[in-house]
Amino acid sequence: MRGMANAQKTYELLVKRLKELGVLDSVGAVLGWDERTQLPEKGAEARAEQMSLIARLRHEMFTSAEIGNWLGEIEGSDLVKDRESDAAVNVRETRHSYDRAAKLPSSLVEELTKMEVLAQHAWVEARKGNNYAAFEPWLAKTLELKRQQADCYGGGAKRYDQLLEDFEPGETATNLQRVFAELRQELVPLVGAIAQSGKEAPAEILERKYPAAQQEKLAKIAAKAVGFDFAGGRLDVSVHPFSTGIAPGDARITTRYDENYFGDAFFGTLHEAGHSMYSQGLPAEHFGTPRGEDISLGIHESQSRMWENLVGRSRSFWEYFLPIAKEHFPEVLKDVSLEQWYFAVNDVKPSLIRTESDEATYNLHVMVRFELEQALLSGDLPTKDLPAAWNGKMTEYLGVDVPDDARGCLQDIHWSGGAIGYFPTYTLGNLYAAQFFEQAKKDVGNLDGQFARGEFAGLLGWLREKIHSQGKKYRATELVNRVTGKPLSAEALMRHLKKKAGELYGV
Amino acid sequence: MRGMANAQKTYELLVKRLKELGVLDSVGAVLGWDERTQLPEKGAEARAEQMSLIARLRHEMFTSAEIGNWLGEIEGSDLVKDRESDAAVNVRETRHSYDRAAKLPSSLVEELTKMEVLAQHAWVEARKGNNYAAFEPWLAKTLELKRQQADCYGGGAKRYDQLLEDFEPGETATNLQRVFAELRQELVPLVGAIAQSGKEAPAEILERKYPAAQQEKLAKIAAKAVGFDFAGGRLDVSVHPFSTGIAPGDARITTRYDENYFGDAFFGTLHEAGHSMYSQGLPAEHFGTPRGEDISLGIHESQSRMWENLVGRSRSFWEYFLPIAKEHFPEVLKDVSLEQWYFAVNDVKPSLIRTESDEATYNLHVMVRFELEQALLSGDLPTKDLPAAWNGKMTEYLGVDVPDDARGCLQDIHWSGGAIGYFPTYTLGNLYAAQFFEQAKKDVGNLDGQFARGEFAGLLGWLREKIHSQGKKYRATELVNRVTGKPLSAEALMRHLKKKAGELYGV
Repeated sequence: MRGMANAQKTYELLVKRLKELGVLDSVGAVLGWDERTQLPEKGAEARAEQMSLIARLRHEMFTSAEIGNWLGEIEGSDLVKDRESDAAVNVRETRHSYDRAAKLPSSLVEELTKMEVLAQHAWVEARKGNNYAAFEPWLAKTLELKRQQADCYGGGAKRYDQLLEDFEPGETATNLQRVFAELRQELVPLVGAIAQSGKEAPAEILERKYPAAQQEKLAKIAAKAVGFDFAGGRLDVSVHPFSTGIAPGDARITTRYDENYFGDAFFGTLHEAGHSMYSQGLPAEHFGTPRGEDISLGIHESQSRMWENLVGRSRSFWEYFLPIAKEHFPEVLKDVSLEQWYFAVNDVKPSLIRTESDEATYNLHVMVRFELEQALLSGDLPTKDLPAAWNGKMTEYLGVDVPDDARGCLQDIHWSGGAIGYFPTYTLGNLYAAQFFEQAKKDVGNLDGQFARGEFAGLLGWLREKIHSQGKKYRATELVNRVTGKPLSAEALMRHLKKKAGELYGV
Repeated sequence: MRGMANAQKTYELLVKRLKELGVLDSVGAVLGWDERTQLPEKGAEARAEQMSLIARLRHEMFTSAEIGNWLGEIEGSDLVKDRESDAAVNVRETRHSYDRAAKLPSSLVEELTKMEVLAQHAWVEARKGNNYAAFEPWLAKTLELKRQQADCYGGGAKRYDQLLEDFEPGETATNLQRVFAELRQELVPLVGAIAQSGKEAPAEILERKYPAAQQEKLAKIAAKAVGFDFAGGRLDVSVHPFSTGIAPGDARITTRYDENYFGDAFFGTLHEAGHSMYSQGLPAEHFGTPRGEDISLGIHESQSRMWENLVGRSRSFWEYFLPIAKEHFPEVLKDVSLEQWYFAVNDVKPSLIRTESDEATYNLHVMVRFELEQALLSGDLPTKDLPAAWNGKMTEYLGVDVPDDARGCLQDIHWSGGAIGYFPTYTLGNLYAAQFFEQAKKDVGNLDGQFARGEFAGLLGWLREKIHSQGKKYRATELVNRVTGKPLSAEALMRHLKKKAGELYGV
């Protein structure tokens, strides 16, 4: 066993290198943000070159033998004896990603990055033109490269799990299938009971005329109110809303404004603000190292869904915020009561678009994608048959008819960006969010009372302490256990959904 | 002498590497654009890290011994025998920049880049708060690093020339002093005669109320009309307007809108569009290699000044464009005649702000900066004495009293960005522009007739052929000779200024 002093020196070299890699990643994030919000049409090819070069340099720098040697040296020292120390966390998680990255050839990394940029541009056009045929070859090529990637990791029969590992470390398709089945077992009857309740939310309230400029003002007020720091962030417009925690002091979110629908931009902004508040709460002094990074996409999504749904669709939130909304849309909202509004923003109804769907049926959208992407990756589902399979599953799970591919299998950006194994983290996020939120209510006290007064610092402070400031100290499953005292289950989410359904639909 | 086949292979390796370096540079350009148009306040520190890392990687990659070896190998071959071939141009110019770059240690490059970002942020705040004291330490540090840089190149007594070489290869302070003295000799009497002519331009027309949103619309129409390609570019807002040719298909310009002054945004946009049209006209297939790059800042400036002044302030341009402007500002401009407007946009009057100054006195602003930056660099002028020296020179050259540093020595971004030796290229640009424009009128025919009909493709096509498509094939002095048949002189510019002064002021 090497002495602490030597290991400490080696660890400092490792941290310095990781921080450089973090900076390089943040450069990639700027390019990605710009690509999706600013890039002129003719600049796509050059942007693909830029992003693939940065990805290649990053990959080469990270997979250098030196890092492997440093890790080996520190792993054999007392420096990592306390498994919760910063050093132990950084070494454990760097080893995990190092071993995976070292298995990917630079050429594949570069090819994947370049292809993702081009495929995303193809997707934007295909979606705009409702032209799946134009996108299909890009999807096929994406899947081919993702299979190669999975096989590099040592895939074979477990290709999907190998890709999932990039988004939700430690999770497996088998386990997800089990959890999702449990959820579905309770969710489908609930959605059915709601449909048969005879009660209808006054949905048309949200479909009145909401000018984009006023929506933007309101979205900014809401994001600021819940705690998004605009001095360290921005809100812009993009086709597919996203958030990106570029670097300390630079977390950016986007939304899109539909003048005939209130919900899209408003709840989308709360959602992305939830993501970015996680970024803004990560310990900046550890930037670039795992100790300063988010845990997983599922945990990230728990933050966005909490602010979007558990806060943003609560009655107490609107006790505070409806008067503010009325100041921005005085004519449109003058006859709307809190009860009507609360019901409208909690309308449960099977629909076509995932990002516009309600808290309950949202998870059925995710299940459709989860099953289809497994079949696409294995090759059981040829890409040309995707639209038919999509439409079939949507009818089976949600009972809706898909009128065209733009509102069907072309609606999401994910697959065009190479994100296979990403969708299930959305439902994981809903499950985590509900379980965390129940605990926050116990720990912080009367959250609803606070929300009704426009006070969100109690919840945000709790999240900062329990989750954000921890970085990657714990894996997701362990964090949930530590924070809530129990393993993840569908119980908290179902309690929440049933309670609201009881209130609004009497079921 | 090595065979052509081997040299060809080596040359291909060189080109591949140069193109990668071009991509890396373009990443830096995206970061720079974002920093000046989008970056949240708290993101400045992280941005400095990003830009300095990219600059360091670029420097390390470019100064590798491998490139030196490749150059040596090709230089000794027949491949570069034809001095105008792509290979000869690329090898000649790469050798020039390679030898210079190899003299700079990576640490200095990184330090300079990081410091420039931070100093620029300090400058933005200092200018906003009219607080020179807050900026002075940054300027002192900048000068110290620039002296180190010049000494690395082998400076000594010629430090200024060493820095100038980065912006205008082959130019010297001695030569500039001579040319500027010639220009001043004719310019000062002309400006004096105008002042004593008793005629006043109806300047208040430009100081009416011009709402920013309408100005933006009009600026975009004008940029598009002269040939700026928005499918491969953008127009945004920044404190200090700039243009950046990021990569093929991605050339971006910025402006700023003053609702009480028409000239700033409109002529600023034409100016930056002129720069970016040069970028858009460079041969994309040579991107990353000298054959695909602009020649010098002076030549770049000749393009911006030509569109801003020789086109944008011509009577024929406004024959076409005043009716369009009137559609955008019907109330404000309804009583304005072409003659009044033409006189207003060609008002010659000593003023405080370089970017708002007229075609004639502009060059006196440049001379002030040229002299001061030489004194700052040599240390003859301590940074704490800059405001007094600035104000003194402004009185001496332009006869104006500087009321505060925000409108004095803090007005320009350049020094805060480490650009010492940059300012004289502005006046070089004016000289080149006038000489090129005289030639274009001869070659293309009736340019004024075309402008009056809104046709700018004749001039742009001529520039594309004679200048843009040439990349760095010729050095600036040689290009001027080849295109106009004579060496650079002040004659064309003075002919142009005198003709206009005669028309408008009767002098």
